[in-house]
Amino acid sequence: MTLRLTPSARLRRSPYYDATRRAGASAFTVYNHMLIPTMYAGPVEEYRALIEAVAVWDVGAERQVEVAGPDARRLVQYLVARDVAGLRPGRARYVMLCNPGGGVVNDPVLLCLADDRFWLSLADRDVLLWVQGIALAGGYDVAVREPDVSPLQVQGPRSPELMARLFGDWVRELRYYRFREAELEGAALVVARTGWSGEYGYEIFLRDAAYGERLWDRVFAAGEGLGVAPGAPNQIRRIEGGILSYGTDMDDSVNPFELGFDRLVDLDGEDFVGRDALREAAERGVDRLLRGVVVAGEPLAAPTHLPVMAGGEPAGRVSSVAWSPRFEANVALALLATGAAAPGTEIEVAGRAGVVQELPFVQATR
Amino acid sequence: MTLRLTPSARLRRSPYYDATRRAGASAFTVYNHMLIPTMYAGPVEEYRALIEAVAVWDVGAERQVEVAGPDARRLVQYLVARDVAGLRPGRARYVMLCNPGGGVVNDPVLLCLADDRFWLSLADRDVLLWVQGIALAGGYDVAVREPDVSPLQVQGPRSPELMARLFGDWVRELRYYRFREAELEGAALVVARTGWSGEYGYEIFLRDAAYGERLWDRVFAAGEGLGVAPGAPNQIRRIEGGILSYGTDMDDSVNPFELGFDRLVDLDGEDFVGRDALREAAERGVDRLLRGVVVAGEPLAAPTHLPVMAGGEPAGRVSSVAWSPRFEANVALALLATGAAAPGTEIEVAGRAGVVQELPFVQATR
Repeated sequence: MTLRLTPSARLRRSPYYDATRRAGASAFTVYNHMLIPTMYAGPVEEYRALIEAVAVWDVGAERQVEVAGPDARRLVQYLVARDVAGLRPGRARYVMLCNPGGGVVNDPVLLCLADDRFWLSLADRDVLLWVQGIALAGGYDVAVREPDVSPLQVQGPRSPELMARLFGDWVRELRYYRFREAELEGAALVVARTGWSGEYGYEIFLRDAAYGERLWDRVFAAGEGLGVAPGAPNQIRRIEGGILSYGTDMDDSVNPFELGFDRLVDLDGEDFVGRDALREAAERGVDRLLRGVVVAGEPLAAPTHLPVMAGGEPAGRVSSVAWSPRFEANVALALLATGAAAPGTEIEVAGRAGVVQELPFVQATR
Repeated sequence: MTLRLTPSARLRRSPYYDATRRAGASAFTVYNHMLIPTMYAGPVEEYRALIEAVAVWDVGAERQVEVAGPDARRLVQYLVARDVAGLRPGRARYVMLCNPGGGVVNDPVLLCLADDRFWLSLADRDVLLWVQGIALAGGYDVAVREPDVSPLQVQGPRSPELMARLFGDWVRELRYYRFREAELEGAALVVARTGWSGEYGYEIFLRDAAYGERLWDRVFAAGEGLGVAPGAPNQIRRIEGGILSYGTDMDDSVNPFELGFDRLVDLDGEDFVGRDALREAAERGVDRLLRGVVVAGEPLAAPTHLPVMAGGEPAGRVSSVAWSPRFEANVALALLATGAAAPGTEIEVAGRAGVVQELPFVQATR
C-alpha cells in the first residue's frame, strides 16, 4: 500500500533529488523534513543488487549536527551514553543519546573531525534543538549548527572497487568506522566506512550541495560494469542485520538496555544525560527486550506496530518487518516482554505464528 | 503533482486517521512525524465549505509540549519572545520561540492551563527537545512532555452553531484566543477559539486518543444541515489571511521582524532566548520583509521556494502560493528584499509578473 504525498516547500529536497527521480525513484518518505526515496525497482531487486553488487542510496535526509569549539568534546561527552574520551579525528562511533529518564533521544553515528569538531549523523528527529538547547542553557562554549552535508551511501560487496575508481586505492584500506576527508573536482567530502546495510560499504558525506547531481553521476559512472543500482535504504537487509530505525523500532520511551545495546552505555565513565536513570535501570533489569522474529508464510506488512501475543497474553509489538528472500520468510524486529523473549519462543504476530530469534539474523560484513 | 508515500510505523497516525480515510482523505503530508491529510474534495471545494459553512480538519499532528511544575512560567517566559507574565489560565497567545541568534525556532500557540501548566501547540518541529534540553541544562524544576492531545479544528462561519450543539451555548461566548476545559461522554478536552484559517472557528484539543473516532463522528453528526465538510488545513484561505507555515514561510534563518511580527517581541520585558540578537536586529533594521504577492494568470505551484526578481536583480523568494477563487489570481507569501517590498512594486516570480501587497489579503474574522 502507498499513499499520495502532497509536495510543499516545507518538505526539503536533497541535492540528489532530481537525479533520484531520473534514476526511477517512484516513492518517498519524509525524514528530517526532507524527501527521501523509498523505492526504485522494488525491495527484493534492490536487495539483490545490494548483497551481490553495489547499491547507491540518497540519504541526504541523514542530517548532521556539527558541534565545534573549545567545549565541543565536553558537550558531546555529556550528550552520549558512551565514553568518547578516546575518540580521535578520523574515527566514528555508533552512539545513544538519552534523555534524563534514560530513553533514547536518537542513535546517530558520531564522527570526530578534529579534537574540537564533531558531527552527529542523525536519525529522524530535530536533535539540533536538543544540542542547541543544552549548549545554550549549560553555557558551553561551542557553535552548534546543521552544516551543508549530504550523505550518499555506497553499499555492497563491489563498493570497494567502485570507491577505489573514484577516490583511489586508499579507500580499500579504510577500516570499519574510520573516515577520511577528501575532494572530488574541488568539492569537499568525507569518505567513511559506515552505512546502514550490514554489507561492506561506504558513506560519502558531500559538503557542497551544489555538487550533488555531479557526484551522483560520477558514482554511477564509476560503478559501470559492477552491477551498480540505485536503491532505497533496504529494509530487508537492515532487518536481517538487526539494524534499528529510530522512530520505528525505538523512541524515547525505550532505553538502550531494552534494545540490547549494553555495550553502548558506559555507566562508570564520564557523566552523561540519563546516567542516573540508566544506572537504576541496570540494577532493576529490563522487562522487555528487542528480538528478531520469523513469521512464515505470505509477506507481512507493518504500517503501524503489530501486536504480539504469547500464551494468549499481550507480549509486545513488532515494529519492522520485511519478507526475506534469503530465509523465504518474514523477518521482523520486536520489543518483547522478557517472558516471551527467549529464542525459540512461539508467539503470535497479528494473528500469525512467529518464532523468536537472536539478533542479528545475518552478521554484518565489516 | 503528487508523489507516492510509503507508509511505515515511523509515520505516526492521528486518532482520526481511519475516520479521515473513510471521509475521503486522498493525499497526506508528514508533519511532526505524523500523517496529516492534505486533500479531500480539493482545495477550492474545501475553501468554499470553510468560508461559507464549516470545515473539520484533522490536525492531530499539531503536537503539544506540556511544561508543568514550579518553574513552568519562568521557563516559558524564557522561551518566548513575548511577555507572558499576564497570561492567565484559559487564555492563549501566538508566540515566537527564537534561538540565541534571533531566528525563529517555532511559532506555536501558547495555552495557559494553570499558573504552573502550559502547552505549546506546535508547528512542524521537535520543539520537545528544545524545551527539554533547556529545562535540563538550565536546572528548571519542571516536567516537559508530549501529552496525549490530538487537536481537531472546526472552522468557518457556521462553526459556532455546530459547536453549540455539541457543547452548549457557552461556546458562542468564547472570545478569540480564550479556551475552556470540557468533557464529552467522559472524554476530557479543551475547547479553544483558535485556528489556522482566518475564519471564525474553534480547536478541540482531545485529551484521550481512544475517543478520536467517536469525536469525529459526533462532530459530523452535530454539523448536519450546516454544510459541514472534512478538509485539510486550507492553503488558499491561510495565505489570503497572511497566516504562516513554519518550515515553509520561515525557519531559524529568519527573525520575527522580517516576518512583520514586531508586536510579538517584547524587547523591554523579561529576558528570553534571542533577546540580545533581536535588540541588535531592531537597531540595525531589516533588509528583507514578508509580503503578499499577487500573480495573475494560470495557477502557480511552489513545491520548492520560487525565485523572485525585481528590476533584473534577485530580490527574494516566494514560499507559499495558492490560486484564490476570491481574487481569481494566485496569492503568495514572499520574503522580499526591502527595496522590492513596497506595496505596488512589480516583481517577477518564476518568470511571471507579480505585484507586491500588504498582508493580509483578507482580514481574519474574530
